[in-house]
Amino acid sequence: MTDLTRFAINQITTKSWSMPEAIEGYRRHGVPGIACWRQYLDDYGAAQTARHLRDAQMWVASLCTSAWFDANDRAGIEKALDENRRILDDAATIGAPSVVMVVGGLPSNDRDLNGHRARVADALQELSEHALKTGVKLGIEPLHPMYCGFRSVISCIAQANDLCDRLGDAAGLVPDVYHCWWDPQFEAELRRAGPERILTFHLCDWLVPTRNLFDRGMVGDGVIDLPRIRGWLDDIGYKGVFELEIFSELDWWQRDPDETVRIAVERCAPLVGRLEK
Amino acid sequence: MTDLTRFAINQITTKSWSMPEAIEGYRRHGVPGIACWRQYLDDYGAAQTARHLRDAQMWVASLCTSAWFDANDRAGIEKALDENRRILDDAATIGAPSVVMVVGGLPSNDRDLNGHRARVADALQELSEHALKTGVKLGIEPLHPMYCGFRSVISCIAQANDLCDRLGDAAGLVPDVYHCWWDPQFEAELRRAGPERILTFHLCDWLVPTRNLFDRGMVGDGVIDLPRIRGWLDDIGYKGVFELEIFSELDWWQRDPDETVRIAVERCAPLVGRLEK
Repeated sequence: MTDLTRFAINQITTKSWSMPEAIEGYRRHGVPGIACWRQYLDDYGAAQTARHLRDAQMWVASLCTSAWFDANDRAGIEKALDENRRILDDAATIGAPSVVMVVGGLPSNDRDLNGHRARVADALQELSEHALKTGVKLGIEPLHPMYCGFRSVISCIAQANDLCDRLGDAAGLVPDVYHCWWDPQFEAELRRAGPERILTFHLCDWLVPTRNLFDRGMVGDGVIDLPRIRGWLDDIGYKGVFELEIFSELDWWQRDPDETVRIAVERCAPLVGRLEK
Repeated sequence: MTDLTRFAINQITTKSWSMPEAIEGYRRHGVPGIACWRQYLDDYGAAQTARHLRDAQMWVASLCTSAWFDANDRAGIEKALDENRRILDDAATIGAPSVVMVVGGLPSNDRDLNGHRARVADALQELSEHALKTGVKLGIEPLHPMYCGFRSVISCIAQANDLCDRLGDAAGLVPDVYHCWWDPQFEAELRRAGPERILTFHLCDWLVPTRNLFDRGMVGDGVIDLPRIRGWLDDIGYKGVFELEIFSELDWWQRDPDETVRIAVERCAPLVGRLEK
């Protein structure tokens, strides 16, 4: 029996669909959850998105993503903090339990990686006050080390867990198999996090060969041992969301989103359903 | 004053040059060291390469690379072991102090990453006997996590140091800024390694944006804090080789190698020379 109750699709997977198209498209295929992206939310409006989701009886996995903290001056960091406070407010409006924090790479003309990592940690600490106020968590997502230059200086799950330790109730972890599968510490750091800290869990696959930095695979098409990872999550008692997120310039983004969602459901259903006893 | 005594170029940087062209080309620009690749060595012959290098008064930084252990059956592993023994012999012939171990990704139809990492560690242990016999070290190079699927399951420097601990005198470390720059443990693991374990140190740069998985930058064109990393190496007492290695489908491999070497010397000289007191 297909059990999709814990399943969401991250709407970047169906990049050419607007917010209402994604909501209707996922509902049509029996997918109850959606992770929203800001550009679609801004186009459609937070209040209208919230109404549409309520009418469709769908839930929100998260709001993607934060504004980048890729500045090394106070004015730049404050601008990003303001923007992120607004994003947290929007997340609250649509009922998103977290905003996925993609913190940005190095500031231009700055090669001090350790220094910038410390600056980002301080900025997240500052932002945590507003997160607690809105009840929306900062979802700390470690990004694959290949994005360290331009998308996020948080490059492995141990770093993300360290940040969560520091940020306390204001934050949680957003692990993604694409970003973490290679990490010898992946299983140990999921155990360290425990089930409550994991806010949503991202699925896709790692293709061989990988042709560029936006070339994620559909579940089952790559080399990640997804059933084993699901086993780790069951073992620690994770009861939360499984969310499919695919960036794919050369393949999935060029297909009809309806086909993508149909195949996504086929591939993910065995992985996201209830446990066989 | 330009001091290139510790400087080598890895000949994949000048991909279109044959072995004799690379030897002559580097010598012409005052570069005393070369890291050789197998395909050029096989074309020119190990004995002839050794003679040419002796006549040119050049030294060898390393021989690249090992045969991949990307098999999960005994026959496949034995085939790779045999091939690697031959490569160690060739390395001895040309006076290369190490063979750079690029161990391969996951075997096809095998997603058990931990299991394969253990298999590779065992294979390296088996190979270490021949390494000790030839006096050529196994140069354990951690490769960027983005190559975990198809080039090497050794993805971070901590893993490589663990392997070196196990392999003892038969092995050493080949750190590369391109593969390690993002790693929060990079500095600590260089300190853990100490100066003797580091067999050669690879330089290039990380470009933003990085367009594909073979898009390394010339020293100075990217975001890696190379002077800081040189400082760490001086601090631990590293006295060994600095080796420029660039894979670049879209840029450097399309240029005249003579231009590449000229620019390489300009860019690297300040980084590889003696310390300012």
